[in-house]
Amino acid sequence: MKALVFDGPGRRAWTEVDDPTIREPTDAIVRVDAVTICGTDLHILKGDVPEVQPGRVLGHEAVGTVTAVGSAVRDVAVGDRVLVSCITACGRCRYCREGHYGQCLGGGGWILGHLIDGTQAEFVRVPHADRSTYKVPYGASDESTVLLADILPTAYEVGVQAAAVRPGDTVAIVGAGPIGLAAILTARLLSPRLIIAIDVADSRLDAARKAGADVTATGASARRVVDELTDGLGVDVAMEAVGLPETFEQAVQLVRPGGHVANIGVHGAPATLHLEDVWSKNLTITTGLVDTATTPTLMGLLADGRIDTSQLITHRFSLDEFDAAYEVFSHPAETGALKVLLTRTN
Amino acid sequence: MKALVFDGPGRRAWTEVDDPTIREPTDAIVRVDAVTICGTDLHILKGDVPEVQPGRVLGHEAVGTVTAVGSAVRDVAVGDRVLVSCITACGRCRYCREGHYGQCLGGGGWILGHLIDGTQAEFVRVPHADRSTYKVPYGASDESTVLLADILPTAYEVGVQAAAVRPGDTVAIVGAGPIGLAAILTARLLSPRLIIAIDVADSRLDAARKAGADVTATGASARRVVDELTDGLGVDVAMEAVGLPETFEQAVQLVRPGGHVANIGVHGAPATLHLEDVWSKNLTITTGLVDTATTPTLMGLLADGRIDTSQLITHRFSLDEFDAAYEVFSHPAETGALKVLLTRTN
Amino acid sequence: MKALVFDGPGRRAWTEVDDPTIREPTDAIVRVDAVTICGTDLHILKGDVPEVQPGRVLGHEAVGTVTAVGSAVRDVAVGDRVLVSCITACGRCRYCREGHYGQCLGGGGWILGHLIDGTQAEFVRVPHADRSTYKVPYGASDESTVLLADILPTAYEVGVQAAAVRPGDTVAIVGAGPIGLAAILTARLLSPRLIIAIDVADSRLDAARKAGADVTATGASARRVVDELTDGLGVDVAMEAVGLPETFEQAVQLVRPGGHVANIGVHGAPATLHLEDVWSKNLTITTGLVDTATTPTLMGLLADGRIDTSQLITHRFSLDEFDAAYEVFSHPAETGALKVLLTRTN
Amino acid sequence: MKALVFDGPGRRAWTEVDDPTIREPTDAIVRVDAVTICGTDLHILKGDVPEVQPGRVLGHEAVGTVTAVGSAVRDVAVGDRVLVSCITACGRCRYCREGHYGQCLGGGGWILGHLIDGTQAEFVRVPHADRSTYKVPYGASDESTVLLADILPTAYEVGVQAAAVRPGDTVAIVGAGPIGLAAILTARLLSPRLIIAIDVADSRLDAARKAGADVTATGASARRVVDELTDGLGVDVAMEAVGLPETFEQAVQLVRPGGHVANIGVHGAPATLHLEDVWSKNLTITTGLVDTATTPTLMGLLADGRIDTSQLITHRFSLDEFDAAYEVFSHPAETGALKVLLTRTN
Repeated sequence: MKALVFDGPGRRAWTEVDDPTIREPTDAIVRVDAVTICGTDLHILKGDVPEVQPGRVLGHEAVGTVTAVGSAVRDVAVGDRVLVSCITACGRCRYCREGHYGQCLGGGGWILGHLIDGTQAEFVRVPHADRSTYKVPYGASDESTVLLADILPTAYEVGVQAAAVRPGDTVAIVGAGPIGLAAILTARLLSPRLIIAIDVADSRLDAARKAGADVTATGASARRVVDELTDGLGVDVAMEAVGLPETFEQAVQLVRPGGHVANIGVHGAPATLHLEDVWSKNLTITTGLVDTATTPTLMGLLADGRIDTSQLITHRFSLDEFDAAYEVFSHPAETGALKVLLTRTN
Repeated sequence: MKALVFDGPGRRAWTEVDDPTIREPTDAIVRVDAVTICGTDLHILKGDVPEVQPGRVLGHEAVGTVTAVGSAVRDVAVGDRVLVSCITACGRCRYCREGHYGQCLGGGGWILGHLIDGTQAEFVRVPHADRSTYKVPYGASDESTVLLADILPTAYEVGVQAAAVRPGDTVAIVGAGPIGLAAILTARLLSPRLIIAIDVADSRLDAARKAGADVTATGASARRVVDELTDGLGVDVAMEAVGLPETFEQAVQLVRPGGHVANIGVHGAPATLHLEDVWSKNLTITTGLVDTATTPTLMGLLADGRIDTSQLITHRFSLDEFDAAYEVFSHPAETGALKVLLTRTN
Repeated sequence: MKALVFDGPGRRAWTEVDDPTIREPTDAIVRVDAVTICGTDLHILKGDVPEVQPGRVLGHEAVGTVTAVGSAVRDVAVGDRVLVSCITACGRCRYCREGHYGQCLGGGGWILGHLIDGTQAEFVRVPHADRSTYKVPYGASDESTVLLADILPTAYEVGVQAAAVRPGDTVAIVGAGPIGLAAILTARLLSPRLIIAIDVADSRLDAARKAGADVTATGASARRVVDELTDGLGVDVAMEAVGLPETFEQAVQLVRPGGHVANIGVHGAPATLHLEDVWSKNLTITTGLVDTATTPTLMGLLADGRIDTSQLITHRFSLDEFDAAYEVFSHPAETGALKVLLTRTN
Repeated sequence: MKALVFDGPGRRAWTEVDDPTIREPTDAIVRVDAVTICGTDLHILKGDVPEVQPGRVLGHEAVGTVTAVGSAVRDVAVGDRVLVSCITACGRCRYCREGHYGQCLGGGGWILGHLIDGTQAEFVRVPHADRSTYKVPYGASDESTVLLADILPTAYEVGVQAAAVRPGDTVAIVGAGPIGLAAILTARLLSPRLIIAIDVADSRLDAARKAGADVTATGASARRVVDELTDGLGVDVAMEAVGLPETFEQAVQLVRPGGHVANIGVHGAPATLHLEDVWSKNLTITTGLVDTATTPTLMGLLADGRIDTSQLITHRFSLDEFDAAYEVFSHPAETGALKVLLTRTN
């Protein structure tokens, strides 16, 4: 089959590799019908994620069709149309027993396109298939469903749920890229009074308003805007959706005493925590990898039209156009790309 | 009356000042029977808390006897023996309505010995007396009760409750001074499986063991000890009870994925948060000033002997020995001081 | 002034009584601009609430203008337009300290129109005014604001919050009268996947659909409808909004293992709890009187148009038409009445 | 092998049956080293649990040694000494994903000695072995470990955790049989201020005091005792540990406004819920079957000596004395039996 193979920092190729096969009784093989590229894939290509070895097939988000299952798989069968989640769960370790699949100690967690071959391929082997794939409801499109593989549950669990957003809250979201937009879409499920989106790019602030932000601000004006809207107190919840020290520090600065800061961004460098300012402010700061425990819930809300993801996919390609897709996705300032979709054509 | 007056950085005096009087219908005047000194008072004397003006009477912890009440005070009366809490609460603002008195926006919070004259005096005016004083149960000693003014509720709320300690948890407490020991004493209420106390001073580790720590470690060996006891996973809960960047960073480093870091220490400088390590670890980090919402509960547990504070008060003085008491308290390495108690003698 | 006076079971009169005056330093006097009638008032008139003495002025919901305040009132002033809440809070007792004002032990709780004279009058004395009245935002109508006195916070706190409604939940609401409709409106703030409204009256089911119910069912068909929609498992949340044994028992029957039953209705008779069926079902059943802790939050959401109460007030009167208003309100089957509004005309 | 077989209401026999064998790749076969009898087994023998078919081997609590495992079992191996839990978990259904194993929809839940053959036998087949057995720590006795199969996690999860017992609480436990005593032992982990045990048998109240109850009362005096100890307010938490309508009604009656009632008892008949009294009392009432999610935590606390179960096993037998053991256990008033232990002797 063809697959997008990482060849060391800066090098990738859509090339021929061996077809995957069932190795464990809990495995499934899935034919990839639709797949996308994640910001994390760009980090891997830069060499920021050293545990990814050359030769690895990338990708951890897909919708596809089951073509084979191991003898112990019970919930999915050959022919089923499934979501392949970015997180795999052994179902036995202490974390899985609490639904914290992202921290799985039994050979799961984020492994696809990371420690084992991933979804940017014609076929993919999915371990622990009963807990790592989800049957797609009749009528749901590949295009919206594939967003359930990572960014929607990530924004909802690591952002909205971790920060305990409640009706009537004021919420600042720092960063209006794909994950920030997903945070806006899922925060709205809780009816905050005010969502303030913060970014440097006007096009992303436009997208934020379409997604449901009530107010937008550029980075420099954010503190003033928040002060005006909250009588100088700060927001109830601030989410970091970029992954830079300065955006994390801004999120901490924007929040009121007793408020929550939820870090969603993937960071490559330490940030400064101004404890001399915040030691007495009763802050709660959270970090996290998605557990995908809410995937079935979000799948239902999406099917019912309660989350509108229509503007998130900005560019479409066929699977053999992976080179072009990576080019577009890695230059969002020029291309306006949010998420790119690649689909099987034959 | 006599009082301990701050005269600017480095200068204090036990000197004659005007007696306090009722100013608001919600005030009470309390004759101070027992009072202690807090680490925060030393910070003020160093000039680290610039909002404290010269001429201010210090102190925010006392047990005393009510000598006068304003017309709107309902729950305490002249002659009542009361605890004077470090936190004053207006009872009307959004924070007080949620029991978050430490963040009071209506003229309360930590104001005694900070923004208004405090308890290191023969008499003290206590605003919002109904929510800022607590009747002392019959039979409770001044010596144990005065610890309810600050360190016991601070350790319990900002440490144990914020970190959501649960039966069976492994808990690391970084710092075994008075607040760290109070954290050990109140963490034990939740039956953790293992309390690991970490400090540089052997005498403090001895005190930690007496307070109920199961294991002790010096700063340098802490990571190794925790790894051995948790199979390399890290502790469920780490509390910072010192107030330095390096002890905060150590607390973050010791905690397992999904664990809690509760900062109790008062900080004067920023710390580094290694987001490149912890962004994916599902940590919850909390900071806070005490609300004293648990003071009645802790008062009951203390009265019933469920918290043993007997080793916390190491030195005793009369009120007019404030100079000596400050000397002893500010040199703990030499004197072995934990908390010092000053009592009225006439 | 004129007031609606209870004269013993079955007897009421809009009649002349003494004007209220300030009795405590924490009191306010409010001129009533808009007031409504509650189902509880009908219970009182039937004699079901024996602690209400003849001579009592009824009513616990109003919007008005402050005409006098006691010396200790800080947050409202003469001339302020305020909501008068059904719950009064001393702010000192153990319940008030936790925000559980409905259970106030210090002379508050539900006392207006119950233990002291109420709001169905030209003027009303409001004790503990700082915690029992709320300034009305500029631009908010009397008509929507008066619903914040009781039914909106009751439905939200005792129903939606007690049952912990979450995005994606299936929610059954038994009873589509005013409180059931308020439960639908406030449940929608949490984006449940499906709201199923159950009632015997078609007109109320119509109102339920307008309020946002996705599905409606008559009492008899409810179990079948729920089974079809939940694969026989039952709903995540069932709310009782009637106050009869059979509707409570139905709510318990409709809920899935692990689900929540929130009783909002006012009951006059015991119900049967089928423990032989539910002992092993991990149910959570809650009861409650509103605390009005969420009143400021709901006031903000209403001001922002996030709750649409437009269909709740079905009939309008002037204050001196109280007789007619009670007639209409007590015969909803004939009049279609939900809430009736009475406003000052001079 | 020999096993205790249910032959229809009132009939049981320790008799020869076929040895169990591996049927699914996730099964294990365990040789039973120690087993006990549960009150639920007596209910089955009375015919109260009609889904139990004649021919069924009873029992859902054991400690034993693994003698065979299926091909997909990963966490236990032949020769391992394991606890066999009363709850079996598929690990795939919506309930298992949330750790609510007791409600498993995938062929688990309480099935041993109920829907499939159980542990009162020389050998037992345990489905889903990775999530239904727990390795016993070195040094732990069979005698204390077997209590982790059911009564300790049941009392802790369905009683203490469901009722959210907190330090300083007043707790009433209605019923001081085995499950009530287990509730006392595990409630103490949270340092309640006062545990009040209520029973009709003096010998059980003696046992309650030994387990850590601070106060005991007979059923008739319970209300008076609680009123005296709580100033007439009621307890924070009441647990029902009997399974009769009147003891449930008493638990509801003893609790303060805002308190929790946790039903632990197994009920065969409906109870009356006095909604006319409690509709406004902000009660939380919970029911439940154990999930055994806390089994590893309790196993650790037991190993560390933080729970003392020494008085719970009152009578000891060998496996072939099942007839005598059932006689003793079913007549506790005469025999003083709490839990009986049967152990393998060859």
